Amino acid sequence: MTAIDHVVHVALGERAYDILIGPGLIAEAGKILAERFPGRRYGIVTDDNVARTQLPLLVAGLEAAGLDYAVITVPAGEGTKSYQMLESVVEGLLAARLERGDLVIALGGGVIGDLAGFAASITRRGMDFIQMPTSLLAQVDSSVGGKTGINSPHGKNLVGAFHQPLLVLADLSALDTLDRRQFAAGYAEVAKYGLIDDPEFFDWLDAHLDEIFSGGPARGEAVARCCAHKARVVIEDEKEQGVRALLNLGHTFGHALEKDTGYSDRLLHGEGVSIGMVLAHRYSTRQGLAPGQDAGRVEAHLKRAGLPTTLGDIAGTLGSTDTLMAAIAQDKKVQRGALTFILTRGIGQAFIEKNVDPATIRSFLDEMRGQ
Amino acid sequence: MTAIDHVVHVALGERAYDILIGPGLIAEAGKILAERFPGRRYGIVTDDNVARTQLPLLVAGLEAAGLDYAVITVPAGEGTKSYQMLESVVEGLLAARLERGDLVIALGGGVIGDLAGFAASITRRGMDFIQMPTSLLAQVDSSVGGKTGINSPHGKNLVGAFHQPLLVLADLSALDTLDRRQFAAGYAEVAKYGLIDDPEFFDWLDAHLDEIFSGGPARGEAVARCCAHKARVVIEDEKEQGVRALLNLGHTFGHALEKDTGYSDRLLHGEGVSIGMVLAHRYSTRQGLAPGQDAGRVEAHLKRAGLPTTLGDIAGTLGSTDTLMAAIAQDKKVQRGALTFILTRGIGQAFIEKNVDPATIRSFLDEMRGQ
Repeated sequence: MTAIDHVVHVALGERAYDILIGPGLIAEAGKILAERFPGRRYGIVTDDNVARTQLPLLVAGLEAAGLDYAVITVPAGEGTKSYQMLESVVEGLLAARLERGDLVIALGGGVIGDLAGFAASITRRGMDFIQMPTSLLAQVDSSVGGKTGINSPHGKNLVGAFHQPLLVLADLSALDTLDRRQFAAGYAEVAKYGLIDDPEFFDWLDAHLDEIFSGGPARGEAVARCCAHKARVVIEDEKEQGVRALLNLGHTFGHALEKDTGYSDRLLHGEGVSIGMVLAHRYSTRQGLAPGQDAGRVEAHLKRAGLPTTLGDIAGTLGSTDTLMAAIAQDKKVQRGALTFILTRGIGQAFIEKNVDPATIRSFLDEMRGQ
Repeated sequence: MTAIDHVVHVALGERAYDILIGPGLIAEAGKILAERFPGRRYGIVTDDNVARTQLPLLVAGLEAAGLDYAVITVPAGEGTKSYQMLESVVEGLLAARLERGDLVIALGGGVIGDLAGFAASITRRGMDFIQMPTSLLAQVDSSVGGKTGINSPHGKNLVGAFHQPLLVLADLSALDTLDRRQFAAGYAEVAKYGLIDDPEFFDWLDAHLDEIFSGGPARGEAVARCCAHKARVVIEDEKEQGVRALLNLGHTFGHALEKDTGYSDRLLHGEGVSIGMVLAHRYSTRQGLAPGQDAGRVEAHLKRAGLPTTLGDIAGTLGSTDTLMAAIAQDKKVQRGALTFILTRGIGQAFIEKNVDPATIRSFLDEMRGQ
């Protein structure tokens, strides 16, 4: 079955683009691209895993539509967001003799979208690119909004560019091939939209959680509502000088935990965000900002989704609180030495707090380690 | 003596900035920056050579103004525009804990401006930067207009970003420390502005050549006129989708020659441009487009400036014509397989020709090699 169930328009002026959502879109991409962007060549960037599952569908469609393409495959995993792989992708695009007017396709999860989008933004000083997100996380979050980049030894996503895609194709069929852990990790970002400023959406998620996980129509609706939410935020604040920072709910804690676990399978990005969101709610409760029952509801909901919610849920031994604090201090959201966190007054009432006292975070983390 | 002799405003809307031109500006930079950008920290990127000559002046001024800074030094030379040095500068900026609102200073010639500007554009997804060009080439060309980048094994400047500086300080005193060869190489870009569309400027240059080389007032005026010219072009076509390509006069041949000589001291960038401009005029004459006497005048003028003007002027053995043609075909200005060149109808009458037949270029190069 192929159908464009939902279209979300990201109204960014001369950088405006559409997000098409529906089943079978990767297989249909050849037709869609031939119609929208006649006369272009394509450089497909994907990873080992997606090359086995989705690439054959894409390639068959491109060939049926008579489109010319090259494929660049990189290893799967967060470690691929490195300087070395960036160079490898850029050189691959140049070796394929792609020209400035040709298009890069990012076929894969968040890692591929971030890496390929960044590579496109710097190849020949800027090529356009198309996101074809194959993970839930990429469909509802990273493929929309133009944040691209790689990781530095100093921290995650510290090197990159704002580079909006020309089109996003979110193929719901691709989600059927995800294992439950990957799907749940992506779901953390779905829940996040409710927690930021949409308590009604959080209630709806609570009521439709099983259907979303089992692949019913609520899944497509959830993806579309998340994309629409993200689009609104990006339109309002493309370069994250204000409200866009709310999308980082749970991410400052989460990034520190990801760094501490070596960006490895010990903790997927969405899992770090899940724990980070629970920590943000709990910390807000400790500070007398949010009702304790909301923190409990958030934790229960994420647990139901199969997500880790406490530091103790992370396999292996965590680094010291000092190590975690150093990672937090290096986060991009630090300004003039003060810590910035997304805190909350309750479900759907997140806000940006730029003057968080490092000492209170440190003692809070110490306490949380014991649990 | 310190004086802002000329101010050129680059009216690019929210990316607008000033170019300040005069003697002693590097020593005065601390004062200027403290006034224009209060409360920022600075990451100075420079090379070994400039670190000896100009850096002490800059640092003394920053310290006198009470500004906090870090210094990142890289080797001098075109080889520094590499992936490896890019990573090294970005990691240096992160290690110095510079934040998104802090500023990068590119203190040096074109290589440093390109490298540091590109590093700034991708560090924390975009930091602002200030150009302090110390070579004539950088002052009249590369520091203005926001083209930044590094070289690829596939060709020059194939990896980079459009990233406009926040301010350009062109210190005329810095030019006094250049050796004659470096100064002459930069002068090729000065002459280029006359050759593109300003025959009156070319006549003026012909009359003031000695004064420009000896450091009289005509030198500052030449720098200011070039900056104003470039600013006009950049305002009209920031991302080189049209007329900005005229600034590449001589550059397609020049880049191929630079690549062939390994981006080494065998041929400086401006020297490649000098030969390239003569070739563009001669080729245009062969095609019946431009009068032969104009090509002769261009060659004589550049020779008077001490610049190489023929393939035979390059030390050592050049690669085959096939090799040169391959480099030309990989140039960014290639579109849909056809060769794009900047040709001319005479001095000050350059134009973009998108349908140059590779076979005529090949036989022209074969012929030129014999001379």
